[in-house]
Order: sequence, then C-alpha cells, then structure tokens
Amino acid sequence: MAAALLTVARYRQLARLIRLFPLPFFVAKWLMLTALISVSVGSASAFFLVSLDWVTSWREANSWVIALLPVGGFLIGLLYHYVGSSVEGGNNLLLDNIHRPATRIRFRMAPLVLAGTLGTHLFGGSAGREGTALQMGGAIADQFTALFRLRPRDRRLVLIAGISAGFGAVFGTPLAGAVFGLEVFLIGRISYEAILPAFGAALGADYVTRWWQVGHTHYHIDTVPPLTPEYAFYAALAGVAFGGCAIVFGKLTHVTSLTFKRWIAFPPLRPLVGGAVVAGFVWVIGTTRYIGLGIPVIVQAFEQPLPPPDFAMKLLFTALTLGAGFKGGEVTPLFFMGATLGNALACWIPLPIALLAGMGFVAVFAGAANTPLACILMALELFGVACGPYVAIACIMAYLCSGHRGIYGSQVVGQSKHLFWGRQQGRKLSDL
Amino acid sequence: MAAALLTVARYRQLARLIRLFPLPFFVAKWLMLTALISVSVGSASAFFLVSLDWVTSWREANSWVIALLPVGGFLIGLLYHYVGSSVEGGNNLLLDNIHRPATRIRFRMAPLVLAGTLGTHLFGGSAGREGTALQMGGAIADQFTALFRLRPRDRRLVLIAGISAGFGAVFGTPLAGAVFGLEVFLIGRISYEAILPAFGAALGADYVTRWWQVGHTHYHIDTVPPLTPEYAFYAALAGVAFGGCAIVFGKLTHVTSLTFKRWIAFPPLRPLVGGAVVAGFVWVIGTTRYIGLGIPVIVQAFEQPLPPPDFAMKLLFTALTLGAGFKGGEVTPLFFMGATLGNALACWIPLPIALLAGMGFVAVFAGAANTPLACILMALELFGVACGPYVAIACIMAYLCSGHRGIYGSQVVGQSKHLFWGRQQGRKLSDL
Repeated sequence: MAAALLTVARYRQLARLIRLFPLPFFVAKWLMLTALISVSVGSASAFFLVSLDWVTSWREANSWVIALLPVGGFLIGLLYHYVGSSVEGGNNLLLDNIHRPATRIRFRMAPLVLAGTLGTHLFGGSAGREGTALQMGGAIADQFTALFRLRPRDRRLVLIAGISAGFGAVFGTPLAGAVFGLEVFLIGRISYEAILPAFGAALGADYVTRWWQVGHTHYHIDTVPPLTPEYAFYAALAGVAFGGCAIVFGKLTHVTSLTFKRWIAFPPLRPLVGGAVVAGFVWVIGTTRYIGLGIPVIVQAFEQPLPPPDFAMKLLFTALTLGAGFKGGEVTPLFFMGATLGNALACWIPLPIALLAGMGFVAVFAGAANTPLACILMALELFGVACGPYVAIACIMAYLCSGHRGIYGSQVVGQSKHLFWGRQQGRKLSDL
Repeated sequence: MAAALLTVARYRQLARLIRLFPLPFFVAKWLMLTALISVSVGSASAFFLVSLDWVTSWREANSWVIALLPVGGFLIGLLYHYVGSSVEGGNNLLLDNIHRPATRIRFRMAPLVLAGTLGTHLFGGSAGREGTALQMGGAIADQFTALFRLRPRDRRLVLIAGISAGFGAVFGTPLAGAVFGLEVFLIGRISYEAILPAFGAALGADYVTRWWQVGHTHYHIDTVPPLTPEYAFYAALAGVAFGGCAIVFGKLTHVTSLTFKRWIAFPPLRPLVGGAVVAGFVWVIGTTRYIGLGIPVIVQAFEQPLPPPDFAMKLLFTALTLGAGFKGGEVTPLFFMGATLGNALACWIPLPIALLAGMGFVAVFAGAANTPLACILMALELFGVACGPYVAIACIMAYLCSGHRGIYGSQVVGQSKHLFWGRQQGRKLSDL
C-alpha cells in the first residue's frame, strides 16, 4: 500500500515536472520515437532498395520473365485478396488515419507491399517505389503506437513521421521527405505540429539507409542560365504542361482501375489480365524501355534528346499496371514522365535540356501529389540550388493547374486552390 | 442605351468565361500584379541596398559621425513623431493587416522607413535591413490595392507578395523570401492561398534588384561532414543555444523599449538618449565592430575563430538601438549574433567553424521570427545544399525552444508549438 502511494506520488511529481517544462520532455519523447522509427524504417528501406536493384538487374538479364507478368499479377492479386484485404487501401489508408485515427495499421502492410512491389518489378510491371516507402514507413511506425500506448493525437504524428522516414530514405532526400510528410495529407495547408517528428524521422531514416551502404542515383544539371522574364514565362508554360501531364495520368489510372473493377469481379484476375495486356504491349513494341522503374531513361533525359512519345508511353504503361492492381506507387514513373516530357519540350522551349528534365522530374509529381514545397526541396537536394527559381515556377504552376485532383484520393482540401472552389474545402479528393 | 446594354452583355460574357476557367484568369491577374510589385519593390530594394552600402562606407571612413548618433536619433524620432505616427507600427502593422484588412497602408511608410534606416546606419546605430525591406515592400504593394480597387481578400495576398518581394530582393534569396511571406504572419501554419503571388513577387523582385546590378554578400561553408547521430546531437544542442539567444534578444529589446517608453514621455527624445548611450559604449570599448549591419564580422565568422563575447555585444547594441526607436529591423543583427555564437560554440562542439556559423546565421533568426522553413531554404540558397540536414536540425530546435515568443508581436499563434500551450492558439504574441 505504502509502496503504491509512493509510486503515485512519484508519478505526480513527474507529471508536475512535465507541466513545468513541457518542451524538453516533448523533445526527448519524440527523439526517442523517431530514433526507433529511423532505425526500423531506414533498414527496411535499405533492404527494399537493394532487393529492388537485384530484381531489376535480374529481369534485365532474363527478359523472358516478362511473359510471366500475368502469373505474377495473379499471385500478387491472390496475396492481397486472401491476406491483405485489411491493408489494401495502401497510401490512402494512411492518409485517412492521419485525418481520423481509427484502428491501428496492421504490420502486414509492410511485408505485403514489399512483396507486391518486388513481384511487380520482377515480372516487368511499370511502377514506382514511393507507395512501398510510405506504406512500409507508416505500417512499421504505427506498431510503436501500440507498443507505447500512444494517444490518437500522438498516433497522427507517428504516422506522419513514418511517411517522412519512408520517403526520405527511399529517395535519399531527407528534407523533401520531411516536408512531404507534413504536406501530403492536406492540400494547400501545412501545420507544424509534426515538424520535429517529420524532420527527425526523415533525417534519421536517411542516415540509417546510407549506413547500410545503400546509395542513390545522381542526376546532373550542368548549366542553369540566370532567370529572366522570358525564361520565367517559358518555365511557367512548361509548368502548365507538367500539370496537364499529372492530370491525364491521374485520370487514366483512375479510369483504368474503374474499368477493371467493372468488368472483372474476382480481384486477383484483374492484375492477371492487366499483366497480360502490359506484357503483350512490351512484345508488340519490342522494348523494355517503359517497364520497371525506368531509372536509366530518367538519367538519359538529363543528357541527350529522347524520342518525344516516351512520356506518353510511360504514362500508358503505368496507368495500366497500377490500375490493374500491381503494387509500388506512382512517383518514380511520374519522375520518368516529367523528365522525358521536359526533355521533349526542349524542342520548343529555349532552356537547357537537363534543366527542363529536372523541372519536369519534380513538377509532374508536384501536380499529381499536390506537394509543391516538398518537390522544390527535392529538386534542390537532387540537382543543387541553381535550378531553384525555375523549379519553383514549374512546380507552382503544375500545382495550380492540376486543381483538386491527384493520385491520393484521401487527401483533404485544406485550402482550396481557387476562390471558386471554396466549397470543396474540407472534403476528400475522392468525394469530389 | 443600346451601347450600354452591349457593354453589360460583354461584361456578363467575361464573367461567365472567368467562372468557367477560373485558373487562367487568376494566374494572369496575379502575374500582372506581381510584375508591378516586382518592378517597384525590386527597384526600391536596389536603391536601398546601394544607398545603405554608401552610407556604411562613408561612416566607416568618417567615424567621428558616430558622436552625432543622438542628433540622428532625435531627427528620426521627430520625423516619425510628426509625419509617421500612422505607420509607426511598422512590420506589425503589416501583419495586422494580413490578419484583418483595415485601412490601406500609407505610402509614406516606405520613404520614412528608408530615411530612418539610412539615418540609423549613417550615424552608427546597430540595426538591420529586413524591417525596411518588408515595410517598403508592403507599403508599395498596398498602393496597387487602391489603384485596382482590390477586395480585402486580394489585399491580403498583395501584402504577402510585398513582404515576400522585399525580403527576397534585399537578401538575394527569392525562395526563402517567398516562404517567409507565407510563413511569417501565423506561427506553426502555412496556407498556400498566396503561393503564386509570394513566389512570383519574390522571384521577380530579386530579378529586378539584380538587373540594377546590385549584388549580395557571399558566405562559404567549405566542408560539411556527413550527418551522424553524434553530430545530429551536437547540432540539436547548438539549436537550443540559438533558440536561447533568440529569446534573450527578443526579451531585451522588449524590455529596453518599455523602459524608454516609461521614462521618456516625448518619443523623439528616446532615440536621442538611446543614441547617446550607444555612442558612449562605442567610445568606451573603442571599436565600431558592433554597430551598423556588421557584414564584415559575419563574413569573418565563417573563416576564423572570433572572440566569444561578440554575439553578446551585438545583442546588447542592437537591443539598445532598436528599443530606443531607431529603424532598420532585427534580422541582419540576428545573423550576426547567430554566426558569431555558432563561431564561439566551435570551442565545445566538434563541428567545422563555418558550418556552425552558418547554422547560427539562420537558426537564431528562425527562433526569433518563428519561420523555420524559410530559414532552411535561406541556408540552402546562401550556403549550398550540403549543410541542409545540420541547418534543419538547428532551425527546428531553435523554433521549438523559442516558444510563443518572437520579434513580431502581431504574429498570431496558428498551431501551438506544444499541446500544453494549446489555449494560446489564435492569439497574438503581444497579447500573451
């Protein structure tokens, strides 16, 4: 009895201390949590990147495997149908939980999305890796919610930290990752509630990934002319094109997904049929240029003129792959589309080809994900500071042009992009 | 009559067109407005920077003029007392008008703050230039509100654009200027309503300033070690010190100002007395190191170890100068304090001296102005991308540590920095 009273007294004393100096406790608590998130998400990302590299090289060396894409799709479909229905919402499930904390994200989201993405890339689907990054990050981070019995308010911050960690680690851009986590769930508004968890987790996870000796691709923009009104006008025009590309991609993926759902009732059959169509296309056009991540083509887009239809082909392949139910995410294909579209625009726009490729790389993504600040930071981290003004113009124009549309249906309109759409504030993109 | 009806019909047609395609009209309108703001604010900033340079060199060559600081102060005091009482609120008046659009900012704010700042620097007060930048920007931009009969909603965006333009042009950091304009009026929250005007005006004004052949100081951070947990810990510690410095400076300026107001009833006498005290100090310590902008010392702080008390001396001189009613702003002195404090911390913290100076440069400002994202972007623009992770840690720690305090009393708490201070949300800093 006495011991219990003593414990209670001690707890009270601690509670009083916390109330007197809330900040040191806040900082200490979140540094501990972000350290845990960093180590686990950073290591998972490192493993993911290494295995993705291995899978991609193996496919490049054994391109007959693409014929098995329908089989791979069927397996991924079966996996999600029988084991993964609770986590099928993917990125949108994470965003929903940031808005309204419901039940804990099940840990299986992480291994499932990892397996699904590796399968998608092994058999030659056209997909990305940010979905995997975010979902592994969110699912792993959310396990700490239960472990430490965190309240719903703290759970939001944990999810944001997980997303920031995943994004920062997979792309090697911690500042952009942190801002992406803060920016992605609400359109047009950032709140700094989670600024410490987001930056802590993104920087930490990036460190852990690098500690595992996992590197990232480098892109080079050699010459950036000083900004003039004329160039600014061209950059804005390019931004409109990038925003348009983001709209078309979002629309096409959505329509593809709806069509598959309408015509094929049994979900695992959808990626089977989709995989057959994609594999058939590859066979018809006779190139593996538009499947997988497409990093080599992205790098080329910074170096030399490429065939203008590249971006449209990638758009088609990715919308088919993802609409059919393959896994991985949209972002690296968006980088591909943006960089090749920028490359193609160099025919009409008198800016260096590498600069246009870099602008497209981030701006199509800014339009599709509605995260302009994260994309500007990403460009600074990947390409250096000189391109900043051009990238800012392109990202903001793409962001404005894409309207209340995007690849994340659970994004909520926090601040409408235009007065005329004010009534849409507070509503989810998928409900508009 | 028929002609009038035709005109009405045409207007209706235009209104319908705008309703159908709101975005192109929105973009066109704001590109036109930001072009006007850019040209006027950018030119004003160029003139200001050139004259500030001239005034500073002249004072350096004729240091006897410091003896006249009380006279200068008295003149500035008289000027504001008899002509400038309507614009004496300065930066806070701008922020108030962003929150609640009231009467138009009078144009005289621009010439008055220009004259006041040049006077302050000519006679050797210790002050900055961002106050001048923001007030010239805001006052010039607001004249277009009347010219085009803009509604209150648009007026807010014009004021934000003016602030972004002034900041971007005076410091040569357009991206940081744009984000500063979006970030400064609300603590802990950004809204993208003004993203196009802010970025447009900041990039435009920076271009115009450079077009006038006005350059900016360059700072160099040669080596940045890769981030490790140990270095991150040290960076966080440094951030706490920078946040503390921001608090002390804010407090001291506030107390000095209150003391002058309590003891000296006639406002023009306050800078007279304050000027006498500052000039006396300069005479006693026998160096002009701590007056003016102090750019040479800031540059030195990136290059070699400096005497540790530097930052404290600058803090004292600036609090006295500004508390007494001189003009110019706090930011360049905050850069000075931060860079020299970082320089001094190199005795205990095993990070390169230039990196610590750069971290302090932006982090003390982040803590005092509650604008961490703008400060991170500023560091990237001024020092390059490599320092990003360190700067982010320092800025966020300084931001969190400084609490609901800062140099702009009219900032409103948009999102409290800690749960425990939640009740302060929605209130002005000066009312807390």
